[in-house]
Amino acid sequence: MAAVHPGSRLRPHVKAHKCTSLAREQYSAGHHSFTCATPSEVLGMVRAGVGDDLLLANEVLDADRLLALSRAQESARITVAVDSDNTLDAAASAGLRDVVIDVNVGLPRCGCSPSDAGRLADRARGYGMNVRGVMGYEGHLMMVADRVEKQRQVHEAMTTLVTAAHDVGGDIISAGGTGTYDLFSGTAVNEVQAGSYALMDSQYATLGLPFEQAMWVVGTVVSTNEQWNVLDVGLKSLGMDHGNPSITDGSVWFCSDEHITFSGTSAKIGDRVRVTPAHIDPTMAMHAVAHVIQDDMVVDTWPIDLRGW
Amino acid sequence: MAAVHPGSRLRPHVKAHKCTSLAREQYSAGHHSFTCATPSEVLGMVRAGVGDDLLLANEVLDADRLLALSRAQESARITVAVDSDNTLDAAASAGLRDVVIDVNVGLPRCGCSPSDAGRLADRARGYGMNVRGVMGYEGHLMMVADRVEKQRQVHEAMTTLVTAAHDVGGDIISAGGTGTYDLFSGTAVNEVQAGSYALMDSQYATLGLPFEQAMWVVGTVVSTNEQWNVLDVGLKSLGMDHGNPSITDGSVWFCSDEHITFSGTSAKIGDRVRVTPAHIDPTMAMHAVAHVIQDDMVVDTWPIDLRGW
Repeated sequence: MAAVHPGSRLRPHVKAHKCTSLAREQYSAGHHSFTCATPSEVLGMVRAGVGDDLLLANEVLDADRLLALSRAQESARITVAVDSDNTLDAAASAGLRDVVIDVNVGLPRCGCSPSDAGRLADRARGYGMNVRGVMGYEGHLMMVADRVEKQRQVHEAMTTLVTAAHDVGGDIISAGGTGTYDLFSGTAVNEVQAGSYALMDSQYATLGLPFEQAMWVVGTVVSTNEQWNVLDVGLKSLGMDHGNPSITDGSVWFCSDEHITFSGTSAKIGDRVRVTPAHIDPTMAMHAVAHVIQDDMVVDTWPIDLRGW
Repeated sequence: MAAVHPGSRLRPHVKAHKCTSLAREQYSAGHHSFTCATPSEVLGMVRAGVGDDLLLANEVLDADRLLALSRAQESARITVAVDSDNTLDAAASAGLRDVVIDVNVGLPRCGCSPSDAGRLADRARGYGMNVRGVMGYEGHLMMVADRVEKQRQVHEAMTTLVTAAHDVGGDIISAGGTGTYDLFSGTAVNEVQAGSYALMDSQYATLGLPFEQAMWVVGTVVSTNEQWNVLDVGLKSLGMDHGNPSITDGSVWFCSDEHITFSGTSAKIGDRVRVTPAHIDPTMAMHAVAHVIQDDMVVDTWPIDLRGW
């Protein structure tokens, strides 16, 4: 990823791993600005001293959390996304100095109407805030299978974003994710907010991206018979919104709270099995630590320290 | 539930809430024996001093965890389920004194073949262990819609369990869950392992049970437009394996990591909204604390202290 988007061209999204030790690896790879999804992720990055430029790519109204972010501006540059008078006014009241205007580019979620972006930027400047630019997340396009059609739709969404950027001013035009990371040439987008690329999951694996699976939940086979095996990894340890996880050469029947029933491998009781999650972000959020392995040896243990809200 | 299954007739399953404060309420309601799904849940209950008789209704091979359970026998009666020579031998090696034989009654998961139960019990007694009886979880029947058919299938499964119980000996015949809690009359089952009844979820709500929803994830509307609203509650805070959560009078479009997009209510930015999870167990496991409310006022805060493994 650092080869395609070196330095500040990538603003790695920490929501995918929630781990400041991994963010530090991304910093070492040249990326010094980061994207966060929650105030708590921003504050955790500040606490860990990772990142020179932290973007909260989400709308926040909570006065206490905004004040905490405001106080943290002493230690790091913090920029928050706003998409309405309410979220802008809340950020201004808390004393936040830097904002980006979050523009809706087609995903039915946050983001102002593109035609309202300039007005919000002017209102922010009226408060004496620094408007750094725009962001717009084309999340609805991540899994479009046909690459030509995907590129067409991404460019259409980015035309909307760039038009809003002209109204807004500033120098940031931020967008994208792992599923669209290489579709921005020919657009004015100047930073990509990808996160999942670092660890990957079985859903993103279907896109044939040049990133390898680097995270598994490892379990032990605790019960077997002629028809199925039972692993002590269950849905409380796996993000399930994208469906069942996968087991190499195995067929997953279903997940229970603490178990996966699977067949198709000649498993014995006591065997260790790697489970590939279907969705990396919520899976990481379920675990307290990640054990770093090299050739199956644990060489480090990283706290997953950006969990919670 | 305490009216239908008073005292030791109910062995509440703590996996549904992972909260010793709530288990203490169940204790006060007369239930002094509990079911756990992980060694960590058992140890947490021992640490909190809740429960006189703790059943680990799951198979464990990990020697360290079994030793920790063995040491905890000084403070509470701990019984572990076994379904194979391997799991039995591991429990015996660790010095565990009490076992139940876990019998497969139709759910493709743990549990020995019914015909092997007696042999396992004899092997356990050969180690000098106390065989307290049998358990068999008919999890595949929880959501059978037709009540007559459900009762027929539960009785069929329990006939299997009771036959195994005769081979095994002991006085415990443990089974059931919230979805089958009232279908054991006429069987020899003498304790029910229900857990979800205490808090409920939108899936169990479809069964028309006499238990009320008592847990919600509360969020704030952070963005709105004419077509949809965005709530700051997402799939990282909701068990998603049973599908999307629900919002009263609202239509949930989809969940993202930190958001729900929904329509159908006249929401305003800043409104607080209650989200009912589709699956209570993994939802509780995602939160550090539960705020106890009475008439919308927070009257207590309970740590969800049985999380993790």
